[in-house]
Amino acid sequence: MSTRLGDLVERLGGQLIGDPALDIAGIAPLDAAGATQITFLSNSRLRAQVAQTQAAAVVLTQADSVLVGDSYAGARIITANPYAWFARAASWFVEQREIRPQPGIHASAAVDPSARVSASAHIGPHVTIEAGAVVGDGCVIESGCYIGREARIGDATHFFARVSFMARCEIGRRGIVHPGVVIGADGFGFANDGGTWIKIPQTGRVRIGDDVEIGANTTIDRGALADTVIEDGVKLDNQIQIAHNCQIGAHTAMAACVGVAGSARIGKYCMIGGAAMISGHLVIADRVHVSAGSLVMHSIAEPGQYTGFYPVTKHADWEKSAVMVRNLTAMREKIRVLEKAVKMLAQNKNEDKNN
Amino acid sequence: MSTRLGDLVERLGGQLIGDPALDIAGIAPLDAAGATQITFLSNSRLRAQVAQTQAAAVVLTQADSVLVGDSYAGARIITANPYAWFARAASWFVEQREIRPQPGIHASAAVDPSARVSASAHIGPHVTIEAGAVVGDGCVIESGCYIGREARIGDATHFFARVSFMARCEIGRRGIVHPGVVIGADGFGFANDGGTWIKIPQTGRVRIGDDVEIGANTTIDRGALADTVIEDGVKLDNQIQIAHNCQIGAHTAMAACVGVAGSARIGKYCMIGGAAMISGHLVIADRVHVSAGSLVMHSIAEPGQYTGFYPVTKHADWEKSAVMVRNLTAMREKIRVLEKAVKMLAQNKNEDKNN
Amino acid sequence: MSTRLGDLVERLGGQLIGDPALDIAGIAPLDAAGATQITFLSNSRLRAQVAQTQAAAVVLTQADSVLVGDSYAGARIITANPYAWFARAASWFVEQREIRPQPGIHASAAVDPSARVSASAHIGPHVTIEAGAVVGDGCVIESGCYIGREARIGDATHFFARVSFMARCEIGRRGIVHPGVVIGADGFGFANDGGTWIKIPQTGRVRIGDDVEIGANTTIDRGALADTVIEDGVKLDNQIQIAHNCQIGAHTAMAACVGVAGSARIGKYCMIGGAAMISGHLVIADRVHVSAGSLVMHSIAEPGQYTGFYPVTKHADWEKSAVMVRNLTAMREKIRVLEKAVKMLAQNKNEDKNN
Repeated sequence: MSTRLGDLVERLGGQLIGDPALDIAGIAPLDAAGATQITFLSNSRLRAQVAQTQAAAVVLTQADSVLVGDSYAGARIITANPYAWFARAASWFVEQREIRPQPGIHASAAVDPSARVSASAHIGPHVTIEAGAVVGDGCVIESGCYIGREARIGDATHFFARVSFMARCEIGRRGIVHPGVVIGADGFGFANDGGTWIKIPQTGRVRIGDDVEIGANTTIDRGALADTVIEDGVKLDNQIQIAHNCQIGAHTAMAACVGVAGSARIGKYCMIGGAAMISGHLVIADRVHVSAGSLVMHSIAEPGQYTGFYPVTKHADWEKSAVMVRNLTAMREKIRVLEKAVKMLAQNKNEDKNN
Repeated sequence: MSTRLGDLVERLGGQLIGDPALDIAGIAPLDAAGATQITFLSNSRLRAQVAQTQAAAVVLTQADSVLVGDSYAGARIITANPYAWFARAASWFVEQREIRPQPGIHASAAVDPSARVSASAHIGPHVTIEAGAVVGDGCVIESGCYIGREARIGDATHFFARVSFMARCEIGRRGIVHPGVVIGADGFGFANDGGTWIKIPQTGRVRIGDDVEIGANTTIDRGALADTVIEDGVKLDNQIQIAHNCQIGAHTAMAACVGVAGSARIGKYCMIGGAAMISGHLVIADRVHVSAGSLVMHSIAEPGQYTGFYPVTKHADWEKSAVMVRNLTAMREKIRVLEKAVKMLAQNKNEDKNN
Repeated sequence: MSTRLGDLVERLGGQLIGDPALDIAGIAPLDAAGATQITFLSNSRLRAQVAQTQAAAVVLTQADSVLVGDSYAGARIITANPYAWFARAASWFVEQREIRPQPGIHASAAVDPSARVSASAHIGPHVTIEAGAVVGDGCVIESGCYIGREARIGDATHFFARVSFMARCEIGRRGIVHPGVVIGADGFGFANDGGTWIKIPQTGRVRIGDDVEIGANTTIDRGALADTVIEDGVKLDNQIQIAHNCQIGAHTAMAACVGVAGSARIGKYCMIGGAAMISGHLVIADRVHVSAGSLVMHSIAEPGQYTGFYPVTKHADWEKSAVMVRNLTAMREKIRVLEKAVKMLAQNKNEDKNN
């Protein structure tokens, strides 16, 4: 499970300065790496630690390499993005150790005869696959998953245990879906008729692109008529709720517990902080960053960071400030009265002088 | 799967003006409906579009029909609530196409011999039904559901995949429960004993009425001693949490990610916006509307809309306003000092004049 | 299922004043207890009700017993914490009635031959247990649970239906895990490479201590490199999210819908209110109480209660106050202008006098 340093650099990119024959067993942080490990400098403020590291090689930028200079004598791998290089290397080492599930369908799985399951896919125990569903090459569908009628799963996609993937939904290649996720439940749509609610059938789908990861117990509802769309490279953390007819732009990342209401359109390369909430029927531009805990009620047309949550304080202080927040109208009124009084005093003064 | 217009109106109500023999294949929005479809005018602001629609018939109110006048020549269906009519019609068309699961128990299901499952119910693969449970006529219990001991499910109720319905809980007729829902887990009740927590057994049930819909991964806890109660016609979106001993009044609707703390009583016909939080042991009147993202800390006795969340702004602006929110006490103090100073100046002025 | 009062006190502690031969069938609140039940006084404000209770015996503190005096003639159990005594007694009575699942592995379960499952454990239908997993004595693993490779479950731990317990995770003794819980899904870790996200493998575990209870649909992510740690006696309500590398101190309790971001360290004996959010990489001291709905953005070094949420009001009032919150900078500026004007007026006045 170890590798020659030269082979690793060939595989992952970067410019090697040092001995390609070095035997490398893994990757670790600057202060933890041993003599058979690589380390990486992704935060320039830690540059001084490079001189002390025990690692066989360090991954760093050209600029940091110049600044490190002679203080470090080991091998170097020069790359524009050492942290991304670390991520790729760590994945490569993990994959070498990993026990891959074997292709084949577990005896306990209930697979409809009309479903098309690739011979290279792994279907675990207690899985259900309904009529007309398609499971691509190299897929791993673990214990207890449910794949609805005519759903389609792209090549090399991995469903961990107990995922629900409802009828006619689609996900692309190399997806990762964690336990408890529900994709394609009905959107929340009702017509009100004198107080009672009449269900509006939800006949759209969920369409998910390639390289999408979806965290545990996240839910993505199917569209009412059109589809709910998650574009390529989107990363969703745990317990996120995406309502019907939303569109999430490519490479947008959302932290846990975010909620996105119906028909919201979120741009590409956005970052949505944990527990942020996005209201329905609005449009968020590309590269918008919403802070954790913020509720977005209106469309955002400009990139940048947006925030709105009440700052936490000692409870006693909050009690005072909360009362005043409620009474800001009274405070403003007092200021107006003062402004008027001061103006009058100043006028009188002038009149006095003029008299 | 098409129908005569006259038959449809007979089925769904309304007054038909036009040819009952027209062949209708579906229902679509004003700008999308074709010559074999019905359309509907639920928002009077779109009234001008009626003249342009290609639809065979339009569903609208008497008042809108008068205002549309001669600008539209096709058939009309007059009804007080065109949107509710649309919802019913859309459901009817979907039901015609739908492939209904067949009655019977899948070979892989584990059904206790003492459970009473209607012969007309469908029990999917990998379902577990414990001793003494009752499943009514025409129910659909899909793959991987768990029905606890002595639980009762009313006629024509549909559990999608992987629902957990715990011991002794009850749900009425025509319910719809989406994947991942957990009904009847223990409420969160503990006695503190010198820092450690002693569990208080949760021996109540969850009792759910007729025509209730529950969204994916929503959780409803069983009562501590009394029951948690969800009345008829309640609609719950995804990832909602209802704590032990709550009571949710009939026809109340809650958007996704709402949390209701223990023993809260929410009235009938309420609307609770997404991610709103209701504190425990309080009472919300009928017809209260809580806005998204608002935390309700006290009982609400009057109908109306209630709101409380920090408005989102550019992060830099928020940073300034958040500091000031924390320092509102200081701001008020400055105003008091000013008020005193201005009062004194005004008095002096008067004294000057009088002197 | 009834017991002698003397036996019960011997079992649960406390000092008995009265007839140990009394036959006791259960425990109930002061106003509901009948002649074969015990009751308890945990809230001294209800002391007057003791005189009216029909109960065979009352559990109360020494101080309350003195104050109750002769007004009550039945038996008494004196203990420092009557509510904890009630909790223990209620559990004891429930256990007598409970139908315990039988030891053994259901025929439909898929248990890897290399897994070590105690002969006294109950493994329900449709359970999957992967290679090398360990299930301790007296465990109950209910329908549809997934136990990953080399995961370890301590003695007498109870998993309700459909729990996902991923590879190499550990939980101690006497744990209670409710349906839909996901323990050990990947943490949310990515390196950004020119806009796209490169997954960082999550190779840590989740390690959970003894006597931990975890509510329905809660998720706890595995660590990135180190472990996510939940210490002894922690109680987590439903739909909580604990991100990778968090540490939750012993006997801390969290209400439903709480989110804790990555690498946060929360102390012992803390109480986190419902839907509170804790940001990543911060440290919360022991015995901190965070109010419901509050977002904690910075470390907290001192015990006490901390709060921060926008107070709810009628929507029209909120609209006004929200505008002003956004414009607090303008308000402060007006106050500064006033302060300057008043100062100048006061100076002029003095100058006038001196002239």
